[in-house]
Amino acid sequence: MDDEGFLMLGRMVTAVELVEGCGEFAALVPEVRTNLVYARERAADRGDVLAVDGRITVVDGRPRAAGRPRFGASSHMARLIIELRRVDPSVRAGIDFAWTPRLSRWLGRYCREQGWVFSVIDRRGEPEEIKEAEGASMPWKVAEAVRAAGGRVPKVFYETGAVGKEPVTVLVGPDPVGVADQACTIARKFHGSG
Amino acid sequence: MDDEGFLMLGRMVTAVELVEGCGEFAALVPEVRTNLVYARERAADRGDVLAVDGRITVVDGRPRAAGRPRFGASSHMARLIIELRRVDPSVRAGIDFAWTPRLSRWLGRYCREQGWVFSVIDRRGEPEEIKEAEGASMPWKVAEAVRAAGGRVPKVFYETGAVGKEPVTVLVGPDPVGVADQACTIARKFHGSG
Amino acid sequence: MDDEGFLMLGRMVTAVELVEGCGEFAALVPEVRTNLVYARERAADRGDVLAVDGRITVVDGRPRAAGRPRFGASSHMARLIIELRRVDPSVRAGIDFAWTPRLSRWLGRYCREQGWVFSVIDRRGEPEEIKEAEGASMPWKVAEAVRAAGGRVPKVFYETGAVGKEPVTVLVGPDPVGVADQACTIARKFHGSG
Amino acid sequence: MDDEGFLMLGRMVTAVELVEGCGEFAALVPEVRTNLVYARERAADRGDVLAVDGRITVVDGRPRAAGRPRFGASSHMARLIIELRRVDPSVRAGIDFAWTPRLSRWLGRYCREQGWVFSVIDRRGEPEEIKEAEGASMPWKVAEAVRAAGGRVPKVFYETGAVGKEPVTVLVGPDPVGVADQACTIARKFHGSG
Repeated sequence: MDDEGFLMLGRMVTAVELVEGCGEFAALVPEVRTNLVYARERAADRGDVLAVDGRITVVDGRPRAAGRPRFGASSHMARLIIELRRVDPSVRAGIDFAWTPRLSRWLGRYCREQGWVFSVIDRRGEPEEIKEAEGASMPWKVAEAVRAAGGRVPKVFYETGAVGKEPVTVLVGPDPVGVADQACTIARKFHGSG
Repeated sequence: MDDEGFLMLGRMVTAVELVEGCGEFAALVPEVRTNLVYARERAADRGDVLAVDGRITVVDGRPRAAGRPRFGASSHMARLIIELRRVDPSVRAGIDFAWTPRLSRWLGRYCREQGWVFSVIDRRGEPEEIKEAEGASMPWKVAEAVRAAGGRVPKVFYETGAVGKEPVTVLVGPDPVGVADQACTIARKFHGSG
Repeated sequence: MDDEGFLMLGRMVTAVELVEGCGEFAALVPEVRTNLVYARERAADRGDVLAVDGRITVVDGRPRAAGRPRFGASSHMARLIIELRRVDPSVRAGIDFAWTPRLSRWLGRYCREQGWVFSVIDRRGEPEEIKEAEGASMPWKVAEAVRAAGGRVPKVFYETGAVGKEPVTVLVGPDPVGVADQACTIARKFHGSG
Repeated sequence: MDDEGFLMLGRMVTAVELVEGCGEFAALVPEVRTNLVYARERAADRGDVLAVDGRITVVDGRPRAAGRPRFGASSHMARLIIELRRVDPSVRAGIDFAWTPRLSRWLGRYCREQGWVFSVIDRRGEPEEIKEAEGASMPWKVAEAVRAAGGRVPKVFYETGAVGKEPVTVLVGPDPVGVADQACTIARKFHGSG
């Protein structure tokens, strides 16, 4: 591996430990689990994106990574981050977590306070021909999130409304330690708000 | 713990290792992960049901339990098994795994060959007032699976069709080692059929 | 596996969790790690003895089992327990932990209070021809521990004085949950005494 | 953490995976387990040295890290590497593994072929006043290894001959990936020689 890879891996391991150390985040881990991804500066495909192998689940009431960070370990979140980077290359890392109506309302206010763009992908608006074409959903979803955010990549967004798909929230940023730290702050403040 | 609990725990640990040792099962682990549950002879609530803490996920291409079996570690699958036992108390264990149209067609034929009852819960038929009442879905789902199976608890069934819910297949039986063994046989034969 | 095996496995898993849950035991884990063993009623060789695969080590300041309990996972402790059972078949489980002069003095008093036989194997007394014969040490060591305890299998004993071998203390009993519980009580009381 | 720390962590995680991926290394893991350490460029104390928390043990017949790499996780190997760096600051990483008379003879030849300096610390030569003074052994051991190697830090050395201490071999170098790779090559070639 090259030094960019080692540096990324060290940051990912640290970011994963941040999430594991945040007990309140357990309440935000969705049924489909949480992933954390980090793309190389010149990421072309999922092999250039670090992700947690097996994702992060909840064990003994606390977040726990199932496996280690590896390049190529994610498909969905890796493609999402690559697609977002076509619009804004400063975005290199992302984390996904649960969506509920209450969290969504709270996040709307929290993002406003932080000056963060908050957006939504309503998959009920997805054209049938895109739903059915293998691999066509991701560009549509990113275009929809960007459109709904007024042309920018939003800091936080969620997708909702699909049959057979659990709704999730996504938070992105330039590096995984920052993204993990922001997600943990959200988990702690949302927990404290309840 | 009493001897029933120790005996159950020993069987669960063994069943989990069977699943972990079956590489082909990785392809059947759904996004929401697989769980394996085992109810006490006189199970009254989820505290009487052993389940894998954090469920079984896929790490390095193979099934891997996130945590250890614990009484009370499952909510959804535990309630499902308790509800099924009201109809047939010989059912004490269950495992859930992915659903796809192709697997479903294959399972239909496989269950026929095995002489197993195969059933379906189509959640599009679920009355709105049940969907919205907390905890009311499970009795409806089990009643529906039993009704569709002509009054018996089916050996294998799946639920499908809900917004925000990944469809899964469930296989049940009297003990977790048998259930794990049957699920692994399905995974190997389905893999070989592809 | 038969029901004796499942029952034993359930007890071992529970015993391992007891040790993992006792933070004070971390101070008693030796460099060579701790093992916990449990022999079948009619154990003939190490394949009939459950032990923790990879033993119990210290991670993040707490005891942690490296792997799972398996029949055949231990060589040294398994042979020790089989040899002890020739003298007293009620002994089926054992745990080893650190030895220091201070712990040894404290244990001498503690065992007296408990009415437990405490013994020592001083390997400086081991004949050269036994040291050099492959597999001959274990019968000599057990005979020495029993001799020094006045003809009985001691509850607690230690071996010391060998070049290239870390000294350890061993505690035995009829089942691993009891043995783990006694070792944890020792760890807590010894910690409190310091 | 700073970028030097992240880069080191990424290299350590990669080095640990190399060792875990080398089945033949299992035969070289000593009873006291293997550690792998990596010192910061300006390491002053053990807090500046990365090491595997809980060390590397053998599970299911393969090397397995008990915990993750952390700064400060090692005492003995960290002090060894810091002491070696007083003589040769290019040494930043080290790994320890088993010692047997047969491995030692084989390593003597292998090191000669590689042009590596091979040395020994015979602790039977250690003065009594040093053995008994807390913390005094390490400078003596390093001075002895260097003296026996003709004034240089040896690439490979072992210490042997102490009561209560398992003999181990140590291999050092500038970075943990290289050191892990060299240790794995030794494990494979020594295995093939047997």
